[in-house]
Amino acid sequence: MLNTLAAAAAPVPLTDVFLSEVLGTAILILLGGGVVAGVLLPKSKAFDAGWIVITFGWGFAVFAGVYASYRSGAHINPAVTFGLLGSGAQEYAPGVAVTFASTLTYLAGELVGAFVGAVLVFLAYRKHFDEEADPGDKLSVFCTTPAVRSYGWNLLTEAIATFVLVYIILRFDNTPAALGALPVALLVVGIGLSLGGPTGYAINPARDLGPRIAHALLPIRGKGSSDWAYAWVPVCGPIIGGLAAGLLSIVF
Amino acid sequence: MLNTLAAAAAPVPLTDVFLSEVLGTAILILLGGGVVAGVLLPKSKAFDAGWIVITFGWGFAVFAGVYASYRSGAHINPAVTFGLLGSGAQEYAPGVAVTFASTLTYLAGELVGAFVGAVLVFLAYRKHFDEEADPGDKLSVFCTTPAVRSYGWNLLTEAIATFVLVYIILRFDNTPAALGALPVALLVVGIGLSLGGPTGYAINPARDLGPRIAHALLPIRGKGSSDWAYAWVPVCGPIIGGLAAGLLSIVF
Amino acid sequence: MLNTLAAAAAPVPLTDVFLSEVLGTAILILLGGGVVAGVLLPKSKAFDAGWIVITFGWGFAVFAGVYASYRSGAHINPAVTFGLLGSGAQEYAPGVAVTFASTLTYLAGELVGAFVGAVLVFLAYRKHFDEEADPGDKLSVFCTTPAVRSYGWNLLTEAIATFVLVYIILRFDNTPAALGALPVALLVVGIGLSLGGPTGYAINPARDLGPRIAHALLPIRGKGSSDWAYAWVPVCGPIIGGLAAGLLSIVF
Amino acid sequence: MLNTLAAAAAPVPLTDVFLSEVLGTAILILLGGGVVAGVLLPKSKAFDAGWIVITFGWGFAVFAGVYASYRSGAHINPAVTFGLLGSGAQEYAPGVAVTFASTLTYLAGELVGAFVGAVLVFLAYRKHFDEEADPGDKLSVFCTTPAVRSYGWNLLTEAIATFVLVYIILRFDNTPAALGALPVALLVVGIGLSLGGPTGYAINPARDLGPRIAHALLPIRGKGSSDWAYAWVPVCGPIIGGLAAGLLSIVF
Repeated sequence: MLNTLAAAAAPVPLTDVFLSEVLGTAILILLGGGVVAGVLLPKSKAFDAGWIVITFGWGFAVFAGVYASYRSGAHINPAVTFGLLGSGAQEYAPGVAVTFASTLTYLAGELVGAFVGAVLVFLAYRKHFDEEADPGDKLSVFCTTPAVRSYGWNLLTEAIATFVLVYIILRFDNTPAALGALPVALLVVGIGLSLGGPTGYAINPARDLGPRIAHALLPIRGKGSSDWAYAWVPVCGPIIGGLAAGLLSIVF
Repeated sequence: MLNTLAAAAAPVPLTDVFLSEVLGTAILILLGGGVVAGVLLPKSKAFDAGWIVITFGWGFAVFAGVYASYRSGAHINPAVTFGLLGSGAQEYAPGVAVTFASTLTYLAGELVGAFVGAVLVFLAYRKHFDEEADPGDKLSVFCTTPAVRSYGWNLLTEAIATFVLVYIILRFDNTPAALGALPVALLVVGIGLSLGGPTGYAINPARDLGPRIAHALLPIRGKGSSDWAYAWVPVCGPIIGGLAAGLLSIVF
Repeated sequence: MLNTLAAAAAPVPLTDVFLSEVLGTAILILLGGGVVAGVLLPKSKAFDAGWIVITFGWGFAVFAGVYASYRSGAHINPAVTFGLLGSGAQEYAPGVAVTFASTLTYLAGELVGAFVGAVLVFLAYRKHFDEEADPGDKLSVFCTTPAVRSYGWNLLTEAIATFVLVYIILRFDNTPAALGALPVALLVVGIGLSLGGPTGYAINPARDLGPRIAHALLPIRGKGSSDWAYAWVPVCGPIIGGLAAGLLSIVF
Repeated sequence: MLNTLAAAAAPVPLTDVFLSEVLGTAILILLGGGVVAGVLLPKSKAFDAGWIVITFGWGFAVFAGVYASYRSGAHINPAVTFGLLGSGAQEYAPGVAVTFASTLTYLAGELVGAFVGAVLVFLAYRKHFDEEADPGDKLSVFCTTPAVRSYGWNLLTEAIATFVLVYIILRFDNTPAALGALPVALLVVGIGLSLGGPTGYAINPARDLGPRIAHALLPIRGKGSSDWAYAWVPVCGPIIGGLAAGLLSIVF
């Protein structure tokens, strides 16, 4: 078992950064997608358990994901990576300098992890995916859909919600791992409760894109469209919000 | 990124106090108003999600708001400012002396922040405000309304609820930032769960007045009255409760 | 503002112990009775909000009560006082020796505080008490009633539930204040969620008896019986559970 | 009262390990089984309170159980014991070497504790067990049942869910006690919310087997089958998940 604090100043190999982000994001999506599967898929014991279950489920998914990826600062979200980039930070985590290679490593780890997590959700809920259900509900296990489709307003909502998350992380400690798993989790619960109504709060490009790719590829019974027309919104909105948070954190 | 602890003893410019309170109160209202919008406005994914969602939403809104305004002690509530004034405290936060100018700075920052937050809620939920809905529900996104209108009793309920919040903050650490974001948030969840039934618990004059002004000014589709007849209650009740907490904290 | 830690070793006057317990227990009952009022009384915004609201409301009521009565170790519950007595502890809190006088001071403060808290609930929810409602629901705002009346089994349930609470407090730090407001609050949430079904979990003799006296005395519109036949169960059950926890904590 | 920290390095007798695991697991099952009884059994005040109550109830059951068994590292779950074994750890807790005898001591303590806890649930909810109810609901108070019976997939779901829990515990601090009662509790809430839908998340062989034995032995009115055909799944799935977590923690 590694002593996280003692290791803080030593350089972290990019392989470890990659694996750490894969693991953390996979657990994030396994639990986050899992709670949506539990609430939406037929015969689940959590069926129809409501918004409070969805939002706390995603929050504690972040909690577990942050714990699982402390070594890399637990970004597990490209909006955090872009926020740090925008803020002019020297490091993405203790021992990980901001470079073109490390930036790509984070983004790749987050996307791969999100894909892996979505596959694990499919396996954990396999017998429930085999049941008859609305194709839109099956898609919602993987990625977000807007309550009222309006790309401009949806983008704005995602950007505002992500801004709140990333600004608070940057303002204090630069990384989710440094701020702590519980505060980050509770921020995500709060943002979900409050700003999740219009778009289902991706607030994380990897969280939406990775599982959407998984939805397109996996042999899900009776699945419908992967709704690629909307896919750019939960990618671009969070990146805009994260970059804006990074820039604001420089001046205030 | 500023080191909050190291900066504690240095004087904080009033401009920073103002911006910090604006930012914290804006995030408080963005998330707090947001959760009401999510639960009350049509087609939202949080529609009809119930009291547990409302109260935890407001609690975590406080959580995020306190984080965002540590530099000024995170009052984000004139009742806290008045409570400190009533307690005879020397400082509103480390490095901010209690003066007429600093008092006005806090109150102005809180009111402006609450207004800004309400505008952001309107933007984040714009497509849902465009839907047909009860004008009273649209108003409730912005400000409080009594369950049974009775100004005297409503005032008393607001004063009692605010007293609990401000007394515990003063008794321990003087400011919400010093007590910590999580304890303050959980106190607000608890007060909301328990004492929110009669008036919807403003427990914060800025939280009610700022968004009410926003409601009056914003071009909200099918909006009704801003209910100015009630507006003094959630301003005066919390101020009375906060001052009473300040005075009691001197003697016990 | 008093520095709790620095004052820890100094003797605490019994007057302060009394006032501290009154204050803490009053806030406990104000918020705890308040959440029941909010869920059961007509026209409340929290009406019919369910068991999750009740249990978290009581838990955060404990949270606030513990904060408000740190000076006396925050017993706010005779079962804790009896537990410490049974455990052979030297002190009820730092600076408060276990004596006949201090024991009576704690018990008196807890009972008076619970009465005061119940009066405050009546005031905060006055207009809702004025509405037509089942007399049993109005009684439930003040004290507990068994789901299935069976004094022996009800007593056992109360004793078991209180044992869990008091044993964990004693096993670690002797007082709720030393264990911390949040752990104690979460224990109470957990006990309520899990063992509250049969009796409504008084787990605290003062919590039940003080408000029951208030119910008998207050001019509540359309009130029914104060159910004195049951009153001994939520007094004796928690005392038995607390004493048992105290005795077990000596040997393991 | 024992000073947990000071005692950390001294050898802990296996009798103490056994009693500590019995006590912790008994409290875990008392509260965990209790919340299911509260939600499923007739006339309970928590009747039909939903998935959020079930999952937080189990989470806070873990919280209380970890507090009650700090002396032995608070495994209270054979999957944790097997995870530590698989990870090649030297100690099961500070002062408890990994040996054949200590392994058996943990497993025996966990199983006995779970049985005792189930008996306590039966006593606390005795009058509600006496009511007419679906035999399947009465069984669910004791042990898990799959939503869709499919042994292979059920096993996989249990293994995945347990892996998340045990990996995070091992990755950080080796034991639940070292990671802390609150993080472990919130992980269990999160796993329950998200992955509990298909199998009701035993994620702990003792949690399922001990109470199932109790169900078979206790004189429960109108009880049905103890469903021994399924009993191996919630034993083997968590052991596989725990061992997998132990092995992964060696390499990453």
